[in-house]
Amino acid sequence: MSLSLADSRYGRSGIRLLKLTRRGDRHEVRDLTVDVALEGDFAASHREGDNRAILPTDSMQNAVFALARDHADGAIEEFALELTRHFLADRDQVERVRVRVAQHPWTRIETGGRPQNHAFARGGTDRRIAVAERSRGDRTPVVDAGIEAMHLMKTRGAGFAGYLKDRYTTLSESDERILSAELNALWRYGWPEIPYAEHYRQVRQVILDTFAEHDSRSVQHTLYAMARAALEQVPPLIEVRLRLLSQPPLSVDLTPFAMENTGEVFRPAEEPHGVVEAVVRRDDLG
Amino acid sequence: MSLSLADSRYGRSGIRLLKLTRRGDRHEVRDLTVDVALEGDFAASHREGDNRAILPTDSMQNAVFALARDHADGAIEEFALELTRHFLADRDQVERVRVRVAQHPWTRIETGGRPQNHAFARGGTDRRIAVAERSRGDRTPVVDAGIEAMHLMKTRGAGFAGYLKDRYTTLSESDERILSAELNALWRYGWPEIPYAEHYRQVRQVILDTFAEHDSRSVQHTLYAMARAALEQVPPLIEVRLRLLSQPPLSVDLTPFAMENTGEVFRPAEEPHGVVEAVVRRDDLG
Amino acid sequence: MSLSLADSRYGRSGIRLLKLTRRGDRHEVRDLTVDVALEGDFAASHREGDNRAILPTDSMQNAVFALARDHADGAIEEFALELTRHFLADRDQVERVRVRVAQHPWTRIETGGRPQNHAFARGGTDRRIAVAERSRGDRTPVVDAGIEAMHLMKTRGAGFAGYLKDRYTTLSESDERILSAELNALWRYGWPEIPYAEHYRQVRQVILDTFAEHDSRSVQHTLYAMARAALEQVPPLIEVRLRLLSQPPLSVDLTPFAMENTGEVFRPAEEPHGVVEAVVRRDDLG
Amino acid sequence: MSLSLADSRYGRSGIRLLKLTRRGDRHEVRDLTVDVALEGDFAASHREGDNRAILPTDSMQNAVFALARDHADGAIEEFALELTRHFLADRDQVERVRVRVAQHPWTRIETGGRPQNHAFARGGTDRRIAVAERSRGDRTPVVDAGIEAMHLMKTRGAGFAGYLKDRYTTLSESDERILSAELNALWRYGWPEIPYAEHYRQVRQVILDTFAEHDSRSVQHTLYAMARAALEQVPPLIEVRLRLLSQPPLSVDLTPFAMENTGEVFRPAEEPHGVVEAVVRRDDLG
Repeated sequence: MSLSLADSRYGRSGIRLLKLTRRGDRHEVRDLTVDVALEGDFAASHREGDNRAILPTDSMQNAVFALARDHADGAIEEFALELTRHFLADRDQVERVRVRVAQHPWTRIETGGRPQNHAFARGGTDRRIAVAERSRGDRTPVVDAGIEAMHLMKTRGAGFAGYLKDRYTTLSESDERILSAELNALWRYGWPEIPYAEHYRQVRQVILDTFAEHDSRSVQHTLYAMARAALEQVPPLIEVRLRLLSQPPLSVDLTPFAMENTGEVFRPAEEPHGVVEAVVRRDDLG
Repeated sequence: MSLSLADSRYGRSGIRLLKLTRRGDRHEVRDLTVDVALEGDFAASHREGDNRAILPTDSMQNAVFALARDHADGAIEEFALELTRHFLADRDQVERVRVRVAQHPWTRIETGGRPQNHAFARGGTDRRIAVAERSRGDRTPVVDAGIEAMHLMKTRGAGFAGYLKDRYTTLSESDERILSAELNALWRYGWPEIPYAEHYRQVRQVILDTFAEHDSRSVQHTLYAMARAALEQVPPLIEVRLRLLSQPPLSVDLTPFAMENTGEVFRPAEEPHGVVEAVVRRDDLG
Repeated sequence: MSLSLADSRYGRSGIRLLKLTRRGDRHEVRDLTVDVALEGDFAASHREGDNRAILPTDSMQNAVFALARDHADGAIEEFALELTRHFLADRDQVERVRVRVAQHPWTRIETGGRPQNHAFARGGTDRRIAVAERSRGDRTPVVDAGIEAMHLMKTRGAGFAGYLKDRYTTLSESDERILSAELNALWRYGWPEIPYAEHYRQVRQVILDTFAEHDSRSVQHTLYAMARAALEQVPPLIEVRLRLLSQPPLSVDLTPFAMENTGEVFRPAEEPHGVVEAVVRRDDLG
Repeated sequence: MSLSLADSRYGRSGIRLLKLTRRGDRHEVRDLTVDVALEGDFAASHREGDNRAILPTDSMQNAVFALARDHADGAIEEFALELTRHFLADRDQVERVRVRVAQHPWTRIETGGRPQNHAFARGGTDRRIAVAERSRGDRTPVVDAGIEAMHLMKTRGAGFAGYLKDRYTTLSESDERILSAELNALWRYGWPEIPYAEHYRQVRQVILDTFAEHDSRSVQHTLYAMARAALEQVPPLIEVRLRLLSQPPLSVDLTPFAMENTGEVFRPAEEPHGVVEAVVRRDDLG
């Protein structure tokens, strides 16, 4: 039987790294999880157990630690780019490198109303993401940035009505419902060497502004409005990829207890959830 | 064979509840998880399957929803107390009621620098806790408040040295190490009807202040300093129970790569972890 | 700014379902998690909040429950296919339907050496998976089957040597190491209406046989051997997609305690892990 | 302010350990998680940062690894006992040692109908537990054994009726419902040096037998029946501690779709859940 090998890739995932940067008396911490994946010609290892083209994933992890010393103090996009540069160099069997860096949020503890120099508390649930990809032969790497697992809720300005009904539809139309969703976003920059940290903050704020202020007619409607606002307001963006996991909290029926529930008591639910995803792109890029 | 039945209790755990409060144009949300447990004489159900003394846990959940409508807008300690009152009333077989309420953090989204009235983002990892216990015959319930799963890290002012060594000790003494810990705290109030929300904020801030500023010689040392500061600075407290899960990030050895690592690159680790716990009480309570 | 909308899809994920089938005095249970996703023209909902083409995901969940009554007693592949048929019918705006069904393992409790008719215990960690996809215009749906989260370990017959070294390589070559991996597999059937349950058991056993008996020179080597054996021994398969997350347990250094550790005491570790993935296909399909 | 320090304890939790035992050509694996906790006089460390009585938790972990080499090949109860002996010896400040060992299930892969000597697959969700406690001055340690996170379900022979109703009761009485529960059990042995592995299997089987065959009138009823059967049938047991987390799968209402659901389609739910716990003891122990 003749067999072909496709989509072959390998690497190391879940590399945990804490980088401490001392700026005078002020410490900064970056708490990161790094994933490295290589694509290329690894057929001999698969077919014959000949590992001459295989760099151990343990060596990848060591390289992440070593390169972190000098390259992990700036934006995580730059660290991801540096790692792709390293893993592509001098290795002809590697065709493509993908590095993903997730930054776990820590905020400075405030004492006496002032931020501390050396003490931190774990922040929200959402993580900042950077993904860099570099292919042999391409001069420009691809850089994506994003947000993972940001939980948002709005209690006014969201409805869902006028939808398709079939024989299994029991949902009531609503002009006001609670919109509660986990947002996962990834956006692509159209050119490199930009102030990544500043753009991250801008896109994040545009997403929050839109979520808060948009008159939402559906999850799709809100998702698209977020993507459009980001593309319109932050010029280096050429594409936004969004994934919303939504689960409207359910109003609890209190009538068996001779009580009214006028939008006060709800059951939040994690599962099952609606999933809406889309990619929105600028068309005018020639 | 003669058998005795001890420590018999039952209830409902993990009741998820979202309470929306409208104050004019401004909405407030409380995202809660409630656990209810009853102790008492349930032997007939155990021994003979006679359920006449058993209120279904489903009814407990319904009561939590119904009572939430009018009693969940204030401090979670007050909601917990109201629930204990309800579950103890008119039920002679119930000897003791314990209600635990955990509040999941949501913060207002800011747009244009101003907090939104109806839009929220999920805050940190830590949850505010209230526990109320009420026993038949006792006039005063017990109220505990606390913090669950607060992650703290300090990069200066923590050492660990002068400890006991045995034949399995390989750890190096250190004057400066990173202290990284998950804090779980529960404190007891000496009298009821106090401004619980304000005291919660006070104790939380005292814990953060102490963590940041204390010259820590061990996890035990920091734990005790936190408890003492809370007892000294917040008068209604009579007891503080703390549990710290600690795991110092490990310095990565870069010498195989001809590099120095002067306290810059670490591996954070979740497991295994040190666990230190203690209860600190005021002695002068007569 | 002109924007295009790509890769738009939505649906319901995490629908939990327990199907009880009575065959005379013997009960069967299927504990399932179902995900439904639709692709098609939903641009009006995104762009204008016009939801006329949007079937609520709540209706999808209702349909899953309703169709489960008569269609969830056989192989999960057949249930997934039936659901794709339903969601594509009579809805011109839907171009493609994808349904994924995961089956959580329950085994019969044995009492007196005999399997019980009505009592079950939760089995292993791995889940059986079925994925069906159906596109408007295509006569034949695509059916994939698989295994999720199967944890395997072998303590003999696995080495890793002869690999590429760079300046960050510290790993020692080994002729014998413990291979410990989480396996995720998905294979494609070349034609429909086959005995899915029987083929599932065959492929699962082939994977186990290969894992146990293969003289492994690397994770890649074992992955490919599994895929090849499955394609060779189970004719309806045309493609196998494998993903192995591997983390060799680390030998603990006992020399500081004047003890030898000759392959007896290890630290298992979940993170970080190596990831190897590949798709292996039959070439002779014309 | 005068403060007292109570319930002070510390240790190391989550120590992961894989022990490989070679019996001729046949390998055995034990995949363990070990927790160690010491109680005693650690006040100087708390109050003054004087660590002379504090053995680092890192040394505890090293000791677990070192002692595992020679003492982890038998029953986990014996390994736990050996660890308590070690941690109490030669340390006057330690009053009490508690060691908990959890064993994660691995089963031999079968190929050609025969169990393999060196290849394993991860088994069910439940873990075997051993807890040993030893106090200074006591000649006999306390040994508990147990089961953690065993998921059980029965589809016949369980009802819940005749219970107390209040104004919040909406649950319908039932002669037949699905009983689905997570069981956590811990039993105490009345004397040491017994065949722990054999007794573990006996108690586990008695629990399964009782769950399957008992005519259950409530979760309490089943819990007590399990405990009684274990105490009656396995003589060294003097006490059984059970905790059941139960959540009956909910029958789905199909009447909106003009369909009947005669006990076929259910929604399993993890949260919220009923919790029932009790300790059952033999009275005739003098």
